[in-house]
Amino acid sequence: MIEDKNQQRTPLSELGEFGLIDHLTKHFDVKHKSTIKGIGDDAAVLDFKSKQIVLTTDMLVENVHFDLSYMPLKHLGYKSVMVNLSDVYAMNANATQITVSIAVSNRFPVEALEELYSGIQTAAAVYGVDVIGGDTTSSTTGLIISVTAVGEVAADEVVYRSGAKPNDLLVVTGDLGGAYMGLQILEREKEVFKVNPQNQPDLDMYTYIIERQLKPEARKDIVKLLKDLEVKPTSMIDISDGLSSEIIHLCKHSDVGVELYENKIPLDPQVISTCEEFDIDSTTVALNGGEDYELLMTISQDDYPKIKANPNLSVIGFITEKSSGMHLVTRAEAKIPIVAKGWNALNNQE
Amino acid sequence: MIEDKNQQRTPLSELGEFGLIDHLTKHFDVKHKSTIKGIGDDAAVLDFKSKQIVLTTDMLVENVHFDLSYMPLKHLGYKSVMVNLSDVYAMNANATQITVSIAVSNRFPVEALEELYSGIQTAAAVYGVDVIGGDTTSSTTGLIISVTAVGEVAADEVVYRSGAKPNDLLVVTGDLGGAYMGLQILEREKEVFKVNPQNQPDLDMYTYIIERQLKPEARKDIVKLLKDLEVKPTSMIDISDGLSSEIIHLCKHSDVGVELYENKIPLDPQVISTCEEFDIDSTTVALNGGEDYELLMTISQDDYPKIKANPNLSVIGFITEKSSGMHLVTRAEAKIPIVAKGWNALNNQE
Repeated sequence: MIEDKNQQRTPLSELGEFGLIDHLTKHFDVKHKSTIKGIGDDAAVLDFKSKQIVLTTDMLVENVHFDLSYMPLKHLGYKSVMVNLSDVYAMNANATQITVSIAVSNRFPVEALEELYSGIQTAAAVYGVDVIGGDTTSSTTGLIISVTAVGEVAADEVVYRSGAKPNDLLVVTGDLGGAYMGLQILEREKEVFKVNPQNQPDLDMYTYIIERQLKPEARKDIVKLLKDLEVKPTSMIDISDGLSSEIIHLCKHSDVGVELYENKIPLDPQVISTCEEFDIDSTTVALNGGEDYELLMTISQDDYPKIKANPNLSVIGFITEKSSGMHLVTRAEAKIPIVAKGWNALNNQE
Repeated sequence: MIEDKNQQRTPLSELGEFGLIDHLTKHFDVKHKSTIKGIGDDAAVLDFKSKQIVLTTDMLVENVHFDLSYMPLKHLGYKSVMVNLSDVYAMNANATQITVSIAVSNRFPVEALEELYSGIQTAAAVYGVDVIGGDTTSSTTGLIISVTAVGEVAADEVVYRSGAKPNDLLVVTGDLGGAYMGLQILEREKEVFKVNPQNQPDLDMYTYIIERQLKPEARKDIVKLLKDLEVKPTSMIDISDGLSSEIIHLCKHSDVGVELYENKIPLDPQVISTCEEFDIDSTTVALNGGEDYELLMTISQDDYPKIKANPNLSVIGFITEKSSGMHLVTRAEAKIPIVAKGWNALNNQE
């Protein structure tokens, strides 16, 4: 276990619940004017003046969403914030505050929670959000992290899943499938480690995809980029479960169909080479892999000139009438219906 | 286990994650004008116009905060909402929205989660809050519920923990110690049940205190009452950990001392009689029991005439200079320092 590497082990009971909260949150400063009161009362108090606020929450559960045998606690803290900020950015909003609740068993020493919180603090600092509250409690077994993120947005800037129109372009940020292939590498190394704990793996050729899995970044930059480009997407969603799942969500909410071009799906060379190594189809990975935390959006064709030169944005298809259905157009120009095989936490449980 | 009583058992995997969320949340309607978009996008969208918002979150963990051998899932859903609304009311705010995240193992059938959500829905209906989002995921072991509550309040109406002044009156709502003694009864009956499962316990004489434990009510009525009486407390906090803990929080945040009168602490006759039966001191129970979800506040002496006739409010002491310390004045008129022995989730774990 990662946390066992700590030289110092202060039992949680030494601090008690209140002591632990104070101890873990003392470095959290308030930066946003909208944060009237952060940690330290029954509730935080926020003031967004005339802006609308967006609110989202996600829970990460040990051995379901993460495995501490290869996920450092600091990275886990960082990732648990990213997962939530990604949802805020998917509304075209500016993330401003988060709350963090953890349930943790006594097998974790205080130093392990300090690691976790240092990742949370780093994420909050890098992304400019205030940590305004949370809850710390014990669990009888594993570690559970629940984050709620708040963001602000002008009423006419909010982008929902439901605004896609026929002929809009389907656009995705970054590249896809990396987080999933990073996970495959980590799972493989875990098996190797079980057989030979002395083995020092050479992971240099997988650094990008491992980082995509262990330390994903939410696309705050895209919200700013879209503003700078004066493009307001007609719909937007973040890619947490895989491209096909999110396309289906978007089309269902917008009451439209889609044509997705296989040859347009952006893939990093490390994803392609690792897929070859594992003998997996890279399109399948991009469609169903999940955890990429990129943004999928639709934009009006009129906005195409504004985005076409941008390396952050790839046009991967276009929106059709609902009656045309949802299809993947393969490299061989065959049309295959898009079906959701996204990562499903409840089905995957063993 | 409560959930095993269900005749019908639909495995969670049959619905899948998205199906489960849809299934559980389809009855949640939006009632508040401030809820622009509830469930169904990456994040909820809220608009509070010129009001400030309060935000609070709490996590309930199986076998730490609740025991399903005597806590019906419907009650658990209801209580998990109350725990959070209580924090909103403690800011003198009006609760408007909640998000509910649950992590649950496959040992729970869909019908069990329906029970849980029916309690959540009942609480939302009774207290007039919109359920605007959440997360549903699997857990490898028990049930974890994380609720975030949002409320609205005019900027000049917010009441913090930090405003108590010397000579203010210390006031508490309702009565104390009931939830703790209810738990003692339930724990005792659990032990009896283990020995003799056929035993039908007669709990008639404990109905009030058992209800205080299993189905607590947050004091929404008090926020309205204070407004009607034109009383703005100088400080306020909810009693989740026990009176002594909360008094200490309030005094520390306000930089003041306190004198608490033992003979003024409001106790229900069932608490007194059950304490006698268990040979426990009822003052100790009121001070350290926790989970009462009453409100503790300080008010200016000028407001005393407005509250003195009200059966919901008991004056139990007064605020002093910090240098005077925090004391309980016993029935024998001895002064004893108040110390925190509140329910501590991390120390209590076995």
